[in-house]
Order: sequence, then structure tokens, then C-alpha cells
Amino acid sequence: MPRQPALRTQPVGPGVGPVRTRVATVATPDNPLDLVAGGRLDHVEVAYQTYGTLSPQRDNAIYICHALTGDAHGAGLDEDSKPGWWDNIIGPGRAIDTDRWFVVCSNLLGGCSGTTGPTSINPDTGQVWGLDFPQIDMHDFVEVHLRLAAQLGISRFHAVVGGSMGGMQALDWSLTRPDTLDNAVIIAASSRLTAQNIAFSAVGREAIVRDPDFEDGAYLNADSRPDTGLSIARMLAHITYLSEDAFAEKFGRTHQFGQSRRGFGVDFAVESYLDHQGETFLSRFDPLSYIYLTRVMDYFDPFGHPQATNRVVADPVNYLVVCFDTDWRFSPSHSRRIVRHLEGAGLPVTFATIASSWGHDSFLMKLDPYHDLVRAFLEVPAERRTARASARAPHFDGHICDREVSR
Amino acid sequence: MPRQPALRTQPVGPGVGPVRTRVATVATPDNPLDLVAGGRLDHVEVAYQTYGTLSPQRDNAIYICHALTGDAHGAGLDEDSKPGWWDNIIGPGRAIDTDRWFVVCSNLLGGCSGTTGPTSINPDTGQVWGLDFPQIDMHDFVEVHLRLAAQLGISRFHAVVGGSMGGMQALDWSLTRPDTLDNAVIIAASSRLTAQNIAFSAVGREAIVRDPDFEDGAYLNADSRPDTGLSIARMLAHITYLSEDAFAEKFGRTHQFGQSRRGFGVDFAVESYLDHQGETFLSRFDPLSYIYLTRVMDYFDPFGHPQATNRVVADPVNYLVVCFDTDWRFSPSHSRRIVRHLEGAGLPVTFATIASSWGHDSFLMKLDPYHDLVRAFLEVPAERRTARASARAPHFDGHICDREVSR
Repeated sequence: MPRQPALRTQPVGPGVGPVRTRVATVATPDNPLDLVAGGRLDHVEVAYQTYGTLSPQRDNAIYICHALTGDAHGAGLDEDSKPGWWDNIIGPGRAIDTDRWFVVCSNLLGGCSGTTGPTSINPDTGQVWGLDFPQIDMHDFVEVHLRLAAQLGISRFHAVVGGSMGGMQALDWSLTRPDTLDNAVIIAASSRLTAQNIAFSAVGREAIVRDPDFEDGAYLNADSRPDTGLSIARMLAHITYLSEDAFAEKFGRTHQFGQSRRGFGVDFAVESYLDHQGETFLSRFDPLSYIYLTRVMDYFDPFGHPQATNRVVADPVNYLVVCFDTDWRFSPSHSRRIVRHLEGAGLPVTFATIASSWGHDSFLMKLDPYHDLVRAFLEVPAERRTARASARAPHFDGHICDREVSR
Repeated sequence: MPRQPALRTQPVGPGVGPVRTRVATVATPDNPLDLVAGGRLDHVEVAYQTYGTLSPQRDNAIYICHALTGDAHGAGLDEDSKPGWWDNIIGPGRAIDTDRWFVVCSNLLGGCSGTTGPTSINPDTGQVWGLDFPQIDMHDFVEVHLRLAAQLGISRFHAVVGGSMGGMQALDWSLTRPDTLDNAVIIAASSRLTAQNIAFSAVGREAIVRDPDFEDGAYLNADSRPDTGLSIARMLAHITYLSEDAFAEKFGRTHQFGQSRRGFGVDFAVESYLDHQGETFLSRFDPLSYIYLTRVMDYFDPFGHPQATNRVVADPVNYLVVCFDTDWRFSPSHSRRIVRHLEGAGLPVTFATIASSWGHDSFLMKLDPYHDLVRAFLEVPAERRTARASARAPHFDGHICDREVSR
């Protein structure tokens, strides 16, 4: 594989600027949230940010769904001047152009960055939920997104966009509530985890749950936290986020301290990297959220029943499905399966495999062919979208086509 | 990929029969073992088994080097009637035919199945070695094998055979002591771990070392054991031993108990498999041995210096290098690198890539093309071997060739 040109992770030019996180209450005892797996939540708060300006017609909104460990801070600079996790794609003049689009980004149900989750207080007991927090589902995420949207006065989105588990939410949203979006952008996602995918998540969860400091999920009451388990889970996950080639290019067999220090501590640079990833994760994520959110992915299988596409066929959504050739967390075959289901139902799909040596992490990187594709897809005029939605054969503007673009 | 025919893991016909493990003392204060990394051991015992009969000329011996978690019980039935870990390839009429060859299999230095290792008693202190056990190297394994061989009256082996880390020992042995073997069989091995390979091992070790029951390696004195860490490490390793396709074929997304039991316990069959692998490993392996032996692989890099092949070029060994197309623990590129180095030095190499859907675990399986190849390679008459050893261009009998055999 040819070496990747130097990667720009941060774009040139000013971004969104300072942003702040707001909180909305989207479920109350009078308006509880009934969950797919049977539970009910009487109180749900959602942390969110917005960028850009909602048009008077309220027709320029884009919803960003985050991946496993994201949060509401998608773009701009927070109070610590830290850029959002997808700041390279969201901003004035960027692929998701905030001069044009009004962008909403919220923290997921079950998360640990402002939205109600297993570390929140159970109002019935006054105690932290812990493992009493109900089982949640990909569709519950979407339901919460829609409740937030209603509070913001948005009944229909120009697009719903997400990478990895964010793409899964965009897919679920499009299949279940096609009346509320025109376009879905599904990046490096899956409609059905493989046994190997589940295996990786299962080992990460076991590391957390078997950590003696997990205390059966009651660690917050016990003044402990299964940090060892959480960092092991994160280190393991990071191996799957980069391609083998990216590991080789980035680290090879170089030693962290120049000379080898033979022993069981950090010696190879790759060990230092994983150690750092495991360590920094502790300050921003919670073990209970980790096990709840990874489990949602394991059970996601939206095409698992024959009526899966009935609604969206009646009210078509335009799809952009993007994958990365070296992604082995969710390899291109996952995206191809999504495309097969959608195209089989006659839905308009633009599909691209982007060449990148960075594996699954590519969806977070500023790769021009990828960002240009997202930008162009979002900018198709509304009248063309309507025309396309009724067309059986998918097609698109001249500079992008629905053929697979691979190396 | 076409589905694999039903796999025979156990061969037809009687095997070696009952076997027993013997112990030899190969280092004493008068004859200590000086280690590559600078340490010294004044007392080393080695557990070993033998199968077949040594010829009066002592020219029919084959040494079996085991992989990470193997032991001396390579074939036959132990006192509990448990077959050896490589019983499907070693036995009367089997590929490593004990009617013809005298086979030696020993537990590795640093192991936990009868050979001296970090859980042995340090004779200087009367305490368990723990982390005071010195750092060991692939070549130290070979040195111990040679000392055992000397006690058995064997100065030259017909072949040294090993899979995975066993193949690495065979490679080191051939490069450093080519005067003591005619043939080396290197299966599913590597001469140099990648950053990703090291990463997987590093996370497994971290799970062990960070387990509070590890007690800085003194757990045997503390009456505890980092079982959680060891089982996490084993579960993780098992993901890398099977191919993604093998996981899909073996488990798919089936539920262990028929109906789904949504939650964080075992629900998918693949979770049950990993759980079982982690659990059963505890009864037969030790956490300290795990971290010592995996670390040996990380540092193995025998072609890392320019004189690597000087000795074997002066005293050529015949090589059989075998890999499996779906192995992603040590992918075929690892074996190809070994072949490039050996062929670059003008050494005779037979190289085959065997089609198998089972990934790295294939080296332990009874796959006919693989076993037939090993059998045929071992049976080349001595006079032909001698003739070949002096020939520049590698070649072989008509039914096997040095071209890569792939699907």
C-alpha cells in the first residue's frame, strides 16, 4: 500500500468558535419514554449542542449521531478550548457547512456526558441507577433524538449523519421514521455485527464486569470504579480501530525510549500508545455506559425482519453509505450488506469505499475524498432530491456516482 | 469461501497409547544456564515425553517445540486418558510417524507444566521466583532443548518441528545450531511480530499484571491468583486464533440458550465459547508463565542482524515453511518474510500456503493437505537431503514443490 500523505486532522480556517452544551428534558412522568426492550424511563435529560442558524422555514437542519464514546460536543471549542470530536467536518465552509446547515449534536441515552444513563439518579430510589438502568436499544436512541428535535421545533431533517454506531442510528432512524428526514449518511457502520465483532465487545465488557471494583455495578455508591477493566476494554478496542498497516506505519517495532528496556513494562512504542489510550479514556468515560452502549450494537439487526424497509419504501430517503478499505472493525462487507438491503428495496443509494490506511478510525479523519463526498451529497438541491426519491434506479451528480470507488 | 468439510480433529486408528512425563535436570550450579538477556539459572528441570524408538544409529529423532500454552504431553494418552495436544499428527502411521521416528516433546523453559519457570522455587531464596525469574529469550528455549537432547544421547535431529511459537524455536535452532538438525519445519510462525501482534499480547499481559490479585507477581505467596486477568487474556487471544469466517461459521449470531436473554451475561454462543475458553485455561496455565512466554515472542527478531544466516549457510538445513491462508494472528506474510530471508541466503525452502477456514488454529488441526505435506517432507531419504543441501536452487519431490500452494 502506498504511504498515506501527511494527514490533516484539523482543517484550515476558523471553526464554529466557542460553543456551550445545553440540556433538554425529553421524558417526564407525564410523558415517559417506553423502551424497546420493555423498560420505561420517567425522566430523561439530553445534553446537546447546535451550530449554525435554523432557517425560517426550518428546513436546513442536520442531526449528528455520535459513535460509542462520543458526546454532544461535536464541533467548536468548549470552555477548555477543546475542539469537538468531529470539528474537522463541521464548521463554516467545512463539509457539513454551518454557514448553510443548522447542526444538532446530542449525547446518547445511556451515555455519561450529560444525557441520562446508568450513572444518573433513579428518581424512584434516589440512588444511582447502576445495573438497574433498563436495557436500551438503537431505536431508543432515535426516539430520544426525535424528542429533542421536537423541542427545537424541527419536524424534518435535511440529513441525519453518523459514523460507526452513529451510522447505525442514522440507518435505524431512516427505516423507522422516514417521514422525519430527507437524507441519511451512514459511515463505517454495520447493520449486523459478526461473531468476531461481538467477541471483541464481549471481552471488553468482561474486563469491566469482572474487575472487583465494579461492585456489581454499584461502584459509584462504593466510592470505587473499575478503572482497570475500563482501560483494558479501551486498549483492546483501539487495536480494532486502526488497521494493521496503520499500526505498522505509526509504530512498527520502535522502542518508546530509544533503547529497548526489556521487561514487562512499556517498551515498544505501540505499548505506550495503548497505555495512553487506556489512561486518558478514564477521565472521560464511564464503565457502565461502556457496557450498556456496546451491548446495544450487539443486538442491532434492523434488516432481521421482512418488513424492515416497508416504511422507507413508502416514503423514500436518499442514502449515502461510505466505508474505508482498511477498516476491519466494520469492514466494507458490512457497508455492502447495508447497500444490498437498501438497493434491493429500490431505494436510492450512493455508495463509496474510500482508500485510507487508517482503518475504522478513518471516519474521524479529514480525508478529502471522503469529506468532499459528504459535502456534495448534502448539497444536492431539494427539488433534485424529490425527483430522485421517486426514481427506481439510484444515480447522482456527475462527479459522484453510485459505483463503488475503490483503490 | 466454500464451507470446510467436516473436520477430523482426531485421527482414525490407535495412537501412541499411554505415555508418561519424565523430568531431566539440565542445569546445575556446576553447569548453569547462562541466558541471552544476561541472567543465569543454577537449576533447570525439564519435563518431557518421548514416543517411538531411537534407532541404534540415533539418526531418527524429531524434536517437537510447543506453542505458547503447550506442554510436554504432545501425543498419546496421559494418566487421565487425555490425548496430547498434537496427537492428531504424532503417532503410528500419522504424519509424524512414531513407527519410524523417535519423537521428543518437552515443556518450555518458563513454562508451568513441569519445566523450571517463574512459579518454581528460586534455590537462592527458597521462595517462588515470581517476577525475579530472569528474562528469557527464544534462544534460551533452544539451549534447554539441546541440553535435554544431549542427556538423551542425541547429537543431531532428523527434524525440529513446531507451530506458532514452536516454529519460532525451530527457526532459531536452525540458524544458531545448524550442526544439530537436518530439517526444520516451521508452521504458522513469524520471525518478527508486527505492532498489532505486540498490541494484542500487551493488552493480555496488562489484564494480568493490573489484576489486583497479581500482587506484583507474588500471588503464589499471597494465596491468590489473577484468574480474572488470565482468563481475559485467554479470551482475547482466542479471538486472534480463529479467522473471522470461522467465527461466523461456528457461531454466527446464534444464541446460546435458543431464545435471546438480553442483558450483560452470556447470550450469544460466541460469548459462551470465549467464556469457556477463559475458564478452562485457568486449570492448566499460570499467569506468570503467560507474561514471560508472550514477551519472548515480542522480542524475537532473528533476522535483525546481518550475520543471521551465516552459520546455516555454512551447514545448510532443509526448511519446510507452512502457513494458512486465513491465519491473521501470523498471516501468510509472516511466513513469506521467513522464506524471503532463507531463500535470499540460498537455503533450500519448501513453502506452502494451505487453504483452511480455521485461521491460526489450523496448525493444530488435522487437515490432510497439511499433514500429507509434513509427512512427505520428513520422509525424503537422507542421501537426497544431503544432495539438496548443497544445491543452490530449492526443489523437492514431484508431488510437492517449492511454489506457493494457495487456493
